[in-house]
Amino acid sequence: MQNTPPAREGRGLSALRAIAIERHFTRHAEGSVLVAFGHTRVLCTASVEERVPPHKRGSGQGWVTAEYGMLPRATHTRGEREAKRGKQQGRTEEIQRLIGRSLRAVFDFSALGERQITLDCDVLQADGGTRTAAITGAAVAAWDACQWLMAQGRIPQNPMRQLVAAVSVGLLGDDYRLDLDYAEDSQCDTDMNVVGTADGALIEVQGTAEGAPFSRQQLDGMIDLAQRGIAELVALQRQALEI
Amino acid sequence: MQNTPPAREGRGLSALRAIAIERHFTRHAEGSVLVAFGHTRVLCTASVEERVPPHKRGSGQGWVTAEYGMLPRATHTRGEREAKRGKQQGRTEEIQRLIGRSLRAVFDFSALGERQITLDCDVLQADGGTRTAAITGAAVAAWDACQWLMAQGRIPQNPMRQLVAAVSVGLLGDDYRLDLDYAEDSQCDTDMNVVGTADGALIEVQGTAEGAPFSRQQLDGMIDLAQRGIAELVALQRQALEI
Amino acid sequence: MQNTPPAREGRGLSALRAIAIERHFTRHAEGSVLVAFGHTRVLCTASVEERVPPHKRGSGQGWVTAEYGMLPRATHTRGEREAKRGKQQGRTEEIQRLIGRSLRAVFDFSALGERQITLDCDVLQADGGTRTAAITGAAVAAWDACQWLMAQGRIPQNPMRQLVAAVSVGLLGDDYRLDLDYAEDSQCDTDMNVVGTADGALIEVQGTAEGAPFSRQQLDGMIDLAQRGIAELVALQRQALEI
Amino acid sequence: MQNTPPAREGRGLSALRAIAIERHFTRHAEGSVLVAFGHTRVLCTASVEERVPPHKRGSGQGWVTAEYGMLPRATHTRGEREAKRGKQQGRTEEIQRLIGRSLRAVFDFSALGERQITLDCDVLQADGGTRTAAITGAAVAAWDACQWLMAQGRIPQNPMRQLVAAVSVGLLGDDYRLDLDYAEDSQCDTDMNVVGTADGALIEVQGTAEGAPFSRQQLDGMIDLAQRGIAELVALQRQALEI
Amino acid sequence: MQNTPPAREGRGLSALRAIAIERHFTRHAEGSVLVAFGHTRVLCTASVEERVPPHKRGSGQGWVTAEYGMLPRATHTRGEREAKRGKQQGRTEEIQRLIGRSLRAVFDFSALGERQITLDCDVLQADGGTRTAAITGAAVAAWDACQWLMAQGRIPQNPMRQLVAAVSVGLLGDDYRLDLDYAEDSQCDTDMNVVGTADGALIEVQGTAEGAPFSRQQLDGMIDLAQRGIAELVALQRQALEI
Amino acid sequence: MQNTPPAREGRGLSALRAIAIERHFTRHAEGSVLVAFGHTRVLCTASVEERVPPHKRGSGQGWVTAEYGMLPRATHTRGEREAKRGKQQGRTEEIQRLIGRSLRAVFDFSALGERQITLDCDVLQADGGTRTAAITGAAVAAWDACQWLMAQGRIPQNPMRQLVAAVSVGLLGDDYRLDLDYAEDSQCDTDMNVVGTADGALIEVQGTAEGAPFSRQQLDGMIDLAQRGIAELVALQRQALEI
Repeated sequence: MQNTPPAREGRGLSALRAIAIERHFTRHAEGSVLVAFGHTRVLCTASVEERVPPHKRGSGQGWVTAEYGMLPRATHTRGEREAKRGKQQGRTEEIQRLIGRSLRAVFDFSALGERQITLDCDVLQADGGTRTAAITGAAVAAWDACQWLMAQGRIPQNPMRQLVAAVSVGLLGDDYRLDLDYAEDSQCDTDMNVVGTADGALIEVQGTAEGAPFSRQQLDGMIDLAQRGIAELVALQRQALEI
Repeated sequence: MQNTPPAREGRGLSALRAIAIERHFTRHAEGSVLVAFGHTRVLCTASVEERVPPHKRGSGQGWVTAEYGMLPRATHTRGEREAKRGKQQGRTEEIQRLIGRSLRAVFDFSALGERQITLDCDVLQADGGTRTAAITGAAVAAWDACQWLMAQGRIPQNPMRQLVAAVSVGLLGDDYRLDLDYAEDSQCDTDMNVVGTADGALIEVQGTAEGAPFSRQQLDGMIDLAQRGIAELVALQRQALEI
Repeated sequence: MQNTPPAREGRGLSALRAIAIERHFTRHAEGSVLVAFGHTRVLCTASVEERVPPHKRGSGQGWVTAEYGMLPRATHTRGEREAKRGKQQGRTEEIQRLIGRSLRAVFDFSALGERQITLDCDVLQADGGTRTAAITGAAVAAWDACQWLMAQGRIPQNPMRQLVAAVSVGLLGDDYRLDLDYAEDSQCDTDMNVVGTADGALIEVQGTAEGAPFSRQQLDGMIDLAQRGIAELVALQRQALEI
Repeated sequence: MQNTPPAREGRGLSALRAIAIERHFTRHAEGSVLVAFGHTRVLCTASVEERVPPHKRGSGQGWVTAEYGMLPRATHTRGEREAKRGKQQGRTEEIQRLIGRSLRAVFDFSALGERQITLDCDVLQADGGTRTAAITGAAVAAWDACQWLMAQGRIPQNPMRQLVAAVSVGLLGDDYRLDLDYAEDSQCDTDMNVVGTADGALIEVQGTAEGAPFSRQQLDGMIDLAQRGIAELVALQRQALEI
Repeated sequence: MQNTPPAREGRGLSALRAIAIERHFTRHAEGSVLVAFGHTRVLCTASVEERVPPHKRGSGQGWVTAEYGMLPRATHTRGEREAKRGKQQGRTEEIQRLIGRSLRAVFDFSALGERQITLDCDVLQADGGTRTAAITGAAVAAWDACQWLMAQGRIPQNPMRQLVAAVSVGLLGDDYRLDLDYAEDSQCDTDMNVVGTADGALIEVQGTAEGAPFSRQQLDGMIDLAQRGIAELVALQRQALEI
Repeated sequence: MQNTPPAREGRGLSALRAIAIERHFTRHAEGSVLVAFGHTRVLCTASVEERVPPHKRGSGQGWVTAEYGMLPRATHTRGEREAKRGKQQGRTEEIQRLIGRSLRAVFDFSALGERQITLDCDVLQADGGTRTAAITGAAVAAWDACQWLMAQGRIPQNPMRQLVAAVSVGLLGDDYRLDLDYAEDSQCDTDMNVVGTADGALIEVQGTAEGAPFSRQQLDGMIDLAQRGIAELVALQRQALEI
């Protein structure tokens, strides 16, 4: 275990990693985005299906849900394949529930109509922050799927009210750090994931003391930094979508 | 769905429900606490085992973990029994991971020695806030188990550095509400769970927009209220433990 | 392993342990009973649902079923949580089938109408005889649920023809012993569970040689004793129900 | 549902069905018996393995266990394959536990030495009484496996103290009926399975009221009849084994 | 591991083992065949059900499917029971898919009508070639089931266009060997299973290099031999069916 | 369903689709190849682990195994996620067994030493022929992993004796077609997958009649065509590897 704080490959403490958002990565899905946060790469597809889960049937309203997975060799050492193991791990379920909630918060289900959008977020390569990359990429894939629905004439207006993005922040010693890579993440005392909207509001705040508890002042400092990162990410999403 | 905000059975918006902490509820466990937050009742037992999980073997250090369950008829309508269904739900795993992390944050694993404390939190009756009641009760059960270890002469000093407690807060319209019951919880726009320590620091902050996103100012207001609630709960834990 | 027969905490060989039947233990269930046979404590809830399993649909007749569980630390050393293990053990399924059969034997399904009563029997603390305590407590919970159905005006008369109770007997050396606690149960040569009705008839007889086979005469002696114990239990059920 | 009691294919009420015990039915197992109780046919194999379960390791003592299965089309209408369904049913586990207990009751584990005999009882054709046929056939297969161990010089004397057999009895109206076939079994008010030894003692007694509860006198009558049946079955086992 | 090639119990390299086809082995199934390829014995039952899987509903067409299993002690050393293990192994699924495809290839689903034939192939004793024996036996069981449907007047003509049979061939050194037993199978460099029809056409060809890759000429030699074996097997099927 | 045979996007009946082999697609794996057969794209990673399965421990020999998966939206309509469903489908297991066998056939396990190479083949986009693309890509990833082992100085020579590749062929009417895409595959009467080596030998031949059985002459024609395709694929592998 190294003792010097990680070097962040030259970026400043409050800078995002190199972000790339590649649309139309695969051809079958209604939205398909390969998103990169540094070395973390997640394939996010949005699938439109003309059916809804039981609790929405007959309501005239739609639904948005998410699933998350990681290829066995996305990580430094090979992990067990969940399909072989026979069940998804608790961590997997927790992440896919977070992605689903985050996207649902910006959808108008009446405008979507009685259909479902499923966001599959599969990590091809992992280097920390897979859930924040997944949310950020899934938002772009969902946007494309909504445009496709409008182009098909199935809905008259965009049911997605605004974009949503997510970023991690951490506290290592006295330093606040934005968008942690894997090496930083495992050294931080506190790790926080924040999901926010294009208009500056918050959807989820999840902060966890990994070592010592954190103070209220530290909490405030981490949220300040996260909100600046989310604003930058939304700008990059817009650029990719040309909107 | 009712439209008037719930009446809170006469308590103020920033008041806790009636809290009861009954120790020694069952006889076999090294710590056994029946905790009540209003009508929510959770049986928390602490079991000491002289073995640790593989990643701690030979380290001289101990481990603390938690499991969570809900009796099928703890709720208003009967839920499916997880043992029959053949797996724990994602929500169950998420809660038991939270309880485990919260308790580990106040433990000195070297002082505990190479043994494990398992905290079983089983909900006998549910009315909102089962995870916060579980953390608050499990802390008392863990404390009793540590006292038992010291009384047995297995360890010279208490490996639990301080107490930990948890509470929920919510935002309903313009009102901040402390310690939500089930009826309130399902009406709130934002729901937050905060875990904190006896000395006023924070371990976990989890806030989720159920409906509309929330502002930074609202986030700050909810955390203020949660910290006051945690301080009250720690006082009640101390009273129960006579420390 | 101790060689002296257990002391039974002062009671005679043909005496029941201290029996307690506490109704209305939880608030959501239509019947909720905490039953104690000495240190064995089982929470029995009866849930009424307006649906029946497929083989009863459209028949005009109802159904009664049971599920059984044990909290991980109900026992002296912590057991594995069945929900985590991913399946119910054979012993669990065997016991819940026994409870269901025993209760169905005293029900008039036409009088119940096309609805189901589910009896959840969860062991909070175990000291031998959990299945007999569960049957005895479930009968009281079921009775309360039937009274609730009548009070609601859903059925005109009680579909439960009579009460049912159960007790264990064992053979240790030459002694017949009633209502075995855990220490006795593990020392007995033969262990028998008998389920009977308020009017003195039998529903289930299950006797097993744990060590040496038993003679016909010994079988007869054990059943004699069990029938006396069942009569006492029914009197206590009536007292609790004030009928 | 027919109303006339079944005809029993000409046999008297207290007569067994045609019993056949064919040894050496398959070639790999140390004991292999195809047993027939009328149309019920069960293949019982005894497998000797030089290992014991954890609770017997290092004890110098052996173990006997059983598994039970039914081919999907052993029954009148095809049943689901348990291997495909992904788990054994409660009924299957209950039966294999009964078979295991019954055989263990006649074994001297010290004489067997630290090895295990597994009895696989697979129903090729079912017509009622599969568990009683399985126990009766498994006893012969176990005996052959013990002879094989002695012939191999691995043990000096037979660890199986005596033979064990099992039979069902039922009460239909006022008639006691021995060795029920499927048609009778589904019409009986009470169904009982009794396991006994060659010297006339009892190992298991399991009686269940299917419809109305039964009286003590009826219980006694059923056990009388079962004990006569067991004596006949032991004679047929001896004839098959030429002992 | 022995080095001399196995002796084949006296038969020539291009001779089948002793083949036996016993019809009506069990009484409930519409077709029931015990097939033996030397010491390999498989019970093949054909079950007719008046329902089809979802993709055939309302089509007026039928379906044929297969399931495969092996009794735990069918083999030289006892294998784990798949029902206990909780899932079918990949090998089991692969074999039952092969059996199903092979039989479907000779069926006219319109002539069968909207009903399903399920072929259960359960290995009672294994000595190599269980899948080829299963296909060969299942074809006879399916033929009997079709005759039964015609005898019942449910269909006017046989929906099974012709018989199908299967055999293995192997390459050991320079020798082509027909119908491998277990000892040969484990020594062969290449193992091939061929499924063919009564009129000489092919349904499946599956050849696998176990050790060194094989040449095109060797492939041709193996298929030549397999086709001769299939013709012999079809003659034996006809003899058993008296057609 | 269209009746005109598919157009193959302009290529001739015996031409491969556009093949692309991109090495070093991800950064953690010792070999990482994105292979494309037309629109079919499979990510093949080779992971070296210094451990072997139980049957190889202490043998001084290595092992090669494979796992296969498909992202839910790799296909035209979204498929269920196997990790969520709780088990791999029979088809998945069959394919990963085929990939593993194919690669093992060209490995010298003594030269590899006691370590394992796991080949993960995950389909990002599917358009027919995923198993043949997976084998062809996995061979290149395995070759890179072997070069890495040599570069690390862990082994002195390449344990992979030669390259291996695979292709499908089909029979549609009278036409033999190489490297079927999804539309062709679903229309073909016979579908065959052939795995071969760089030196022209064969490892696996799997031909299946989807509709009518096929003749021996047709089998020969399909294998001729497949062998030409394999030779072309090996040339492309060599070009990618610059060997």
